[in-house]
Amino acid sequence: MKRELYLETTPLNEAIEKWLKKLESQGFLKAFPGEKVMVSESLGRITAEPVMARLSSPFYHSSAMDGYAVKYQETFGASETSPKKLKLSEQAVYVDTGDPMPDGFNAVIMIEDVNVIKSQESGVRSQDSELRIPNSELIEIIEPATPWQNVRVIGEDIVATELILPENHRIRPVDVGAMIAGGHIDINVRKKPRVVIIPTGTEIVEPGTNLKRGDIIEYNSRVLGGLVSEWGGEAIRFRIVPDNLDELKDAILEAHNAGDMVIVNAGASSGSEDFTSKAISETGEVILHGVSIKPGKPVIIGVVKNKPVLGIPGYPVSAFITFNLFAKPVIYKWQGIEMEPPEVLISVLSRQVASTLGQEEFLRVKIGKVGDKFIATPVSRGAGVLMSLVRADGFVRIPAMSEGIGAGSEVNVELLRTKNEIENTIVCIGSHDNALDLLANSLKKKYLKLSLSSAHVGSMGGLMALKKGEAHIAGTHLLDEETGEYNVSSVKRLLSDRRIILVNLVYREQGLLVLKGNPKNIRGFEDLTREDVVFINRQAGAGTRLLTDKHLREFRIKPEDVKGYEREEYTHMGVASAVLTGIADTGLAILTSAKALGLDFIPVAKERYDLAVPFEFYNTEMIRALLSIITEDNEFRDMVANLGGYDINDMGKVMYDG
Amino acid sequence: MKRELYLETTPLNEAIEKWLKKLESQGFLKAFPGEKVMVSESLGRITAEPVMARLSSPFYHSSAMDGYAVKYQETFGASETSPKKLKLSEQAVYVDTGDPMPDGFNAVIMIEDVNVIKSQESGVRSQDSELRIPNSELIEIIEPATPWQNVRVIGEDIVATELILPENHRIRPVDVGAMIAGGHIDINVRKKPRVVIIPTGTEIVEPGTNLKRGDIIEYNSRVLGGLVSEWGGEAIRFRIVPDNLDELKDAILEAHNAGDMVIVNAGASSGSEDFTSKAISETGEVILHGVSIKPGKPVIIGVVKNKPVLGIPGYPVSAFITFNLFAKPVIYKWQGIEMEPPEVLISVLSRQVASTLGQEEFLRVKIGKVGDKFIATPVSRGAGVLMSLVRADGFVRIPAMSEGIGAGSEVNVELLRTKNEIENTIVCIGSHDNALDLLANSLKKKYLKLSLSSAHVGSMGGLMALKKGEAHIAGTHLLDEETGEYNVSSVKRLLSDRRIILVNLVYREQGLLVLKGNPKNIRGFEDLTREDVVFINRQAGAGTRLLTDKHLREFRIKPEDVKGYEREEYTHMGVASAVLTGIADTGLAILTSAKALGLDFIPVAKERYDLAVPFEFYNTEMIRALLSIITEDNEFRDMVANLGGYDINDMGKVMYDG
Repeated sequence: MKRELYLETTPLNEAIEKWLKKLESQGFLKAFPGEKVMVSESLGRITAEPVMARLSSPFYHSSAMDGYAVKYQETFGASETSPKKLKLSEQAVYVDTGDPMPDGFNAVIMIEDVNVIKSQESGVRSQDSELRIPNSELIEIIEPATPWQNVRVIGEDIVATELILPENHRIRPVDVGAMIAGGHIDINVRKKPRVVIIPTGTEIVEPGTNLKRGDIIEYNSRVLGGLVSEWGGEAIRFRIVPDNLDELKDAILEAHNAGDMVIVNAGASSGSEDFTSKAISETGEVILHGVSIKPGKPVIIGVVKNKPVLGIPGYPVSAFITFNLFAKPVIYKWQGIEMEPPEVLISVLSRQVASTLGQEEFLRVKIGKVGDKFIATPVSRGAGVLMSLVRADGFVRIPAMSEGIGAGSEVNVELLRTKNEIENTIVCIGSHDNALDLLANSLKKKYLKLSLSSAHVGSMGGLMALKKGEAHIAGTHLLDEETGEYNVSSVKRLLSDRRIILVNLVYREQGLLVLKGNPKNIRGFEDLTREDVVFINRQAGAGTRLLTDKHLREFRIKPEDVKGYEREEYTHMGVASAVLTGIADTGLAILTSAKALGLDFIPVAKERYDLAVPFEFYNTEMIRALLSIITEDNEFRDMVANLGGYDINDMGKVMYDG
Repeated sequence: MKRELYLETTPLNEAIEKWLKKLESQGFLKAFPGEKVMVSESLGRITAEPVMARLSSPFYHSSAMDGYAVKYQETFGASETSPKKLKLSEQAVYVDTGDPMPDGFNAVIMIEDVNVIKSQESGVRSQDSELRIPNSELIEIIEPATPWQNVRVIGEDIVATELILPENHRIRPVDVGAMIAGGHIDINVRKKPRVVIIPTGTEIVEPGTNLKRGDIIEYNSRVLGGLVSEWGGEAIRFRIVPDNLDELKDAILEAHNAGDMVIVNAGASSGSEDFTSKAISETGEVILHGVSIKPGKPVIIGVVKNKPVLGIPGYPVSAFITFNLFAKPVIYKWQGIEMEPPEVLISVLSRQVASTLGQEEFLRVKIGKVGDKFIATPVSRGAGVLMSLVRADGFVRIPAMSEGIGAGSEVNVELLRTKNEIENTIVCIGSHDNALDLLANSLKKKYLKLSLSSAHVGSMGGLMALKKGEAHIAGTHLLDEETGEYNVSSVKRLLSDRRIILVNLVYREQGLLVLKGNPKNIRGFEDLTREDVVFINRQAGAGTRLLTDKHLREFRIKPEDVKGYEREEYTHMGVASAVLTGIADTGLAILTSAKALGLDFIPVAKERYDLAVPFEFYNTEMIRALLSIITEDNEFRDMVANLGGYDINDMGKVMYDG
């Protein structure tokens, strides 16, 4: 079958170098010319020329104190023993702070150092005692003044002609003040780079459209446009263009007129990507197509006439990464400013990660500070999983020449959040429960600086994470079949050398989820061997998986007789979603997840879900804050109860300490 | 004399605590309610409620590959030795990446793994070869499919009901995408806090006004308004209100209706400040007036009805500091977010700083990284010197209980610039020359990431700074009276143990500056002893000071016979400004400074101005970049030549290396 595969991929550094060299050599990387804006509207803009003071500030000599302006020559000889008298208005003039110095006067004596002599004879009175012009003709001083003492002389702040701001400087609030003080009303700032983003794809629809199967809601242009704004540019969103070569070519040419850079954001289909490459090559030049990175490989780099044009892949993570790599440096150069290097945090990788040789991978990780180490845990690697970016704290770059990174290795994480935010994040690893989402929300609401990050690896995985020092707390619901008690024996066995406190979060109901109305009439575990029933399982180590296996044993059902036993989900919601969408007919999960997606529920067991907290974290400020939500925050407790399927009677109670 | 001094000052921490407690106790610190905005317009806003997914994403099963959708049950048994044939459209359907899975199909086989069999008999042809529907009825596969392989299942990215963003989260570009993918069109974000800023003072005028003595150009409201924007609020600038109690009270009440917080920015006069305190107490309550900080002491903290009202001092540095201390935390609380703590850099203080006991001082410093140490050097401490904020890299807080900090002490600097910017800054300490401003500008223009920071402490001070490791380079023009040569003997004497390279910047003319037309008919140094002539000097250690003293000796003039000898300026422009504004009649400075301010010039000497560069910095990337500007950048050389008074024939030439 004939099929146009895109060109050989290029290594990343080579691709970036080729890209910038090409633009540079054609003069397309120069800083943009300036445009006039009012200084008062210039915040955040970049100066397009040096800003020199037109005026001195202050532009006249003024008093720096409340007191009397004098001529210092006339104060010579004043002392405590022989005070000197000065005639008001002739030799001394009252001035408030900021008042201009009267002509010929060249020093100010503070009001506290002046003795005012009431002159009964003269009878002169102040007409306005509010202004505190004293009822006197004379003042007495006991010390000579030095030239220009207590005077703000012209140019004390800014001398006319002095450089206030250099070219290529991002204007801050204080800079606005200094430019106004220096006599500027409008200034030249860099024109904002305009980036036109064309969403393409016949299947692409606007948010809010009545959706039908096959539609893809367009949001990449909003992500890319947001990045453009953050980088100082102006994003212009083009109308959605269907998969049609001529229409796309027309769109590129129209966008080319409207902006300084054109972004074609292909739909997810390779068909539309092929159109993009062709449309760019037929309106301009494709410099390269395909870069050895993951995600983001199919990126297209081109120039149409004198402007850069990028074909950005459709998967959201690929789009984000390639746009950062290829558009950001150009947008910065155009503004005459340097990109700030990303903040890098040295962390320890919690899990082994294999990577494809020959491809530089951008691995998204969550980071937690547990004890004094930063632990980085990979999140989903799918290019289509935007939530992996929303949740990530940063990227680890796995070099093209590496086949992966071992667990426990030190890695450099390029941060997407600040180190401070990461340090104020409680890391919860373990079993998934919907109440954790509410807990995260209530924590952030009450303690603004704190966050709760949860990773769902099952109850066993959570206790192992505590053991390895990768988490502050673990959510767990592990039944000891012998004692019938939850969690205690597992904690004793797996964490024998540590003091662990088990705090109850909830009791919750587990059961088999089925579609509304139970169309396959599933009654319980006994039906899992039926030919027409497909099951969806949880991953090994999940408490719910253990519960499944326990019930299969009780019913003497062999796993190989259960269709779908080998397909694993990582969360209750994943199981519920699989049942709702027909991937499976049933699976074991908590009642809350059935309620969330409107499924029917066949109760199987009531179980205890605890948070396991190592003693060394139990009294930290972060954990105490978290526990205070669980024990005291009625709003949180009510919200959990309202989810349905929970018993919160023991919420916050210490179930075990040892 | 009766004079209302403001109340006893309160220690800073106590003041902040009192302020926040007061607001909290009255319920004025709660996070603001939400308002609906389009998700596409929500970038940078703060979520006012948790955002849960309304839709799953994807919301239908779709192909993750270009290939053939199949039913995995029908692929059992396929192998290399016995391939399995599937009928097109019945058992296999071509799908592009992103296409919805046809009903009943549950796996995708990549196109590369499929062998398409042309069926000559059937004669079925694709109607649209663009879409690559193959001319065939059968495909052949050599491996069975696993359930849901190469399928993006519903909810792979986001499962309906899942938490996308918690409450109190600042929305980033990726968050916008995730909310749209999760089915949101509009969301609830925190209302922006509206801060109404009232500029007060009868002497205050708008920028652009025809200025007369006594006018003060209003710019504080622009600085404070810019800060409000950066903090996420909305600044509303009120009209300028004159110093009149009733008008100010009316303004406060009107502003109170228009916003959530009212800022009264008093003029510099104490009169207007007194009005502010009275106006707040007569419309509401003054909580405290006067905080033990420097600058910023006269701040007024109050509440009018249910809204905070601040009286912010008029001096720009005081305004900046008090607004940060008292307004910022409230604006953040209202948005439901925590202030990011300032980045702190441990630095070494280059000079001793004395401070007033009982006052917490906010000392502005410039920082340079010289070798591996960060060196912090205090800049002007005047509350009226806005340029000290423009130029500062950060603040050192000197505690109230301290009388100062010794030279060489480690200090924590709260940064106003990033550490990266500081690390890319060349520190030039020494003699002042106007060409350094141009050099700073040209460097930044050509090497976007580099900056040149110059401090003017005179030639001797510059060489001492090199000796103490506080600067990368020093500007110097020190004449050896015996040899008649510049700089070499001073470098040999002061830096005998170091290899120093002297690179010429310019030759320049020094002379006596006088007003245009030389009204006092000053002919030269011989006139400095005249009764009617006031001189303005440079500070000790300045090359120009040495030149002055040399000429006084030659003319056998004693310093005490020169009026004004004791008054020192730190720069050539300072001397020029003093002459222009009548502080002095004449002073020694370079021709360029006379030209800049339109003064007449009586030539005295032509001198060599070099940059002294220690060998260990000479080949660093930063210094090489700087030297390349001096030696190769014609635009820079032309600009210097155009300043006038310079001979650039040796610019960039190494004058000495040893």
